[in-house]
Amino acid sequence: MRREDSIQVLVSKFIEKDRIALAKIITIVENEPDKAKEIFDIIYKNTGKAYIIGVTGSPGSGKSTLISKLAQEMRNRGKTVGIISIDPSSPFSGGAFLGDRVRMREIVSDPDIFIRSVASRGISGGLSKATYDIAAVFDAYGKDYILIETVGAGQAEVDIMKIADTIICVFTPGAGDSIQAQKAGIMEIGDILVVNKADMDGDKLALQLELALDSYTRQTGWRPPVLCTIATEGVGIRELLESIEKHRKHIELTGVLEERRKNHIEKKIKEIVLQIVEEYVSKFLKEDREIKNLVEKVYSKEENIYSAANKLIQPLIKKFEE
Amino acid sequence: MRREDSIQVLVSKFIEKDRIALAKIITIVENEPDKAKEIFDIIYKNTGKAYIIGVTGSPGSGKSTLISKLAQEMRNRGKTVGIISIDPSSPFSGGAFLGDRVRMREIVSDPDIFIRSVASRGISGGLSKATYDIAAVFDAYGKDYILIETVGAGQAEVDIMKIADTIICVFTPGAGDSIQAQKAGIMEIGDILVVNKADMDGDKLALQLELALDSYTRQTGWRPPVLCTIATEGVGIRELLESIEKHRKHIELTGVLEERRKNHIEKKIKEIVLQIVEEYVSKFLKEDREIKNLVEKVYSKEENIYSAANKLIQPLIKKFEE
Repeated sequence: MRREDSIQVLVSKFIEKDRIALAKIITIVENEPDKAKEIFDIIYKNTGKAYIIGVTGSPGSGKSTLISKLAQEMRNRGKTVGIISIDPSSPFSGGAFLGDRVRMREIVSDPDIFIRSVASRGISGGLSKATYDIAAVFDAYGKDYILIETVGAGQAEVDIMKIADTIICVFTPGAGDSIQAQKAGIMEIGDILVVNKADMDGDKLALQLELALDSYTRQTGWRPPVLCTIATEGVGIRELLESIEKHRKHIELTGVLEERRKNHIEKKIKEIVLQIVEEYVSKFLKEDREIKNLVEKVYSKEENIYSAANKLIQPLIKKFEE
Repeated sequence: MRREDSIQVLVSKFIEKDRIALAKIITIVENEPDKAKEIFDIIYKNTGKAYIIGVTGSPGSGKSTLISKLAQEMRNRGKTVGIISIDPSSPFSGGAFLGDRVRMREIVSDPDIFIRSVASRGISGGLSKATYDIAAVFDAYGKDYILIETVGAGQAEVDIMKIADTIICVFTPGAGDSIQAQKAGIMEIGDILVVNKADMDGDKLALQLELALDSYTRQTGWRPPVLCTIATEGVGIRELLESIEKHRKHIELTGVLEERRKNHIEKKIKEIVLQIVEEYVSKFLKEDREIKNLVEKVYSKEENIYSAANKLIQPLIKKFEE
């Protein structure tokens, strides 16, 4: 069998909603860039129908349980779900206590919920690319909802979250969570704020969040609602899904959804272009003997690091400006 | 007064060890790239004499106190010290409890200890550049030792630490610190391991660290010693400085110091080149009208993101390959 044939066969099975083909394609997309391009050339036209929801919150905020319950609620309404976890401590990633995994059993065994965890590889760019690619595969497969789980910390996380149409930020009472969140810039990107474990003095935190929201001005006419949930007991999950649907309608009607997706496409294209250019330049630098020479000069203080870099880059810049 | 004059004057004062000129130059270097180049062109030849020590450890490990005591010990031996903190929760950065700041008072008031904290700007590249530049300024100013404080978490942190000649990893008993450290790759870069707050069951952690060290093979003939300190009481500080000096002699004699510094110079030059190229490409993409066109095509599923990026990059690649 020729390689082309086998990918064709795999994609046909994928289009017929074969779960094993889905799993295989995700693995290919993650690990074999050349084949990935071939696959996307065929399946990309089927994307754009899934609704992507990002769920972010500190480890221990209960966001995995919240996602499980939310996925079940979606299934109850006849929808299919794909889950992408990029939280290494999440039970979806296998890095959790037995109790969590037992609690996940119902959703793991549902054939219409597909879970994939993306391992952190130290490179935030790689993580963002993997998340984007897997979401596109889920989308092309026909998943109605895609749920992405991240730990809300740092700029890289925030960037990854921007792939989502609706972003949910999960907070828990105690631990000064609301202050931390503001620092990390999470509140600015949240479309829905959830106080989980709300049975533990959740009202106070909800109020703090409402007050914090007052200090942000948004141009979209959407004030993020603050919802209280107790995910382990399923409390507030229906309201959360309704809130998601409300936000979805809002951004569809106002054109924000289209704008967000186009912005994201533009950002993604630029990222890929920069990546390719970087590979080129790195190769160029590797082959350049001049660099060893310049390192010696910088080491012996004949040059400083900036003037050395400048000398190295002149031939490249000339090429650009031609 | 012409601008050139004022920089000349500033640098003259700097060379005469004027503290205010030092502070001003650091601020310029951090914020005004053009002037920074001008300054480095003059002062870079004076660098290379300072010994750079990185101190990394989780928040709460007591590394700020350790650094303070270490700086005092260095001062007792007649040496001058520059401290760079890139830990936002550090008392050096002002983000700490009153008690900490009171404890820091002695070193803050010493004219031969200069402390600078580098604010995290969300970009790890920016952080690494700022740290490098400030260290170079301290070095040119004539500081004998430069101490860099970071929170040991993530690849970006590890990269920043590589500027140091000797890297100290600080651990505290409890909190499963030793396991976390191994995960973060910290142990692999540590030249000296310190168990701080050693009065709280430190022997056990020290033993765990010794055992963990057995599983790393190093090519440098240096096995990192595990030292116990109680920084708040000054216990073990003298031994730590002696250990640093022992490591310094080791890497000087074996040529590791020269090799490390050259490797770091090479990495830094490449980083700067990539940065400049990125700026060029970003500018090129901004002016390119084709990108808006391609975004529309990707949005309407006529193209996928990878084929779009590829189309955009063709003219650039052609320039490279000419």
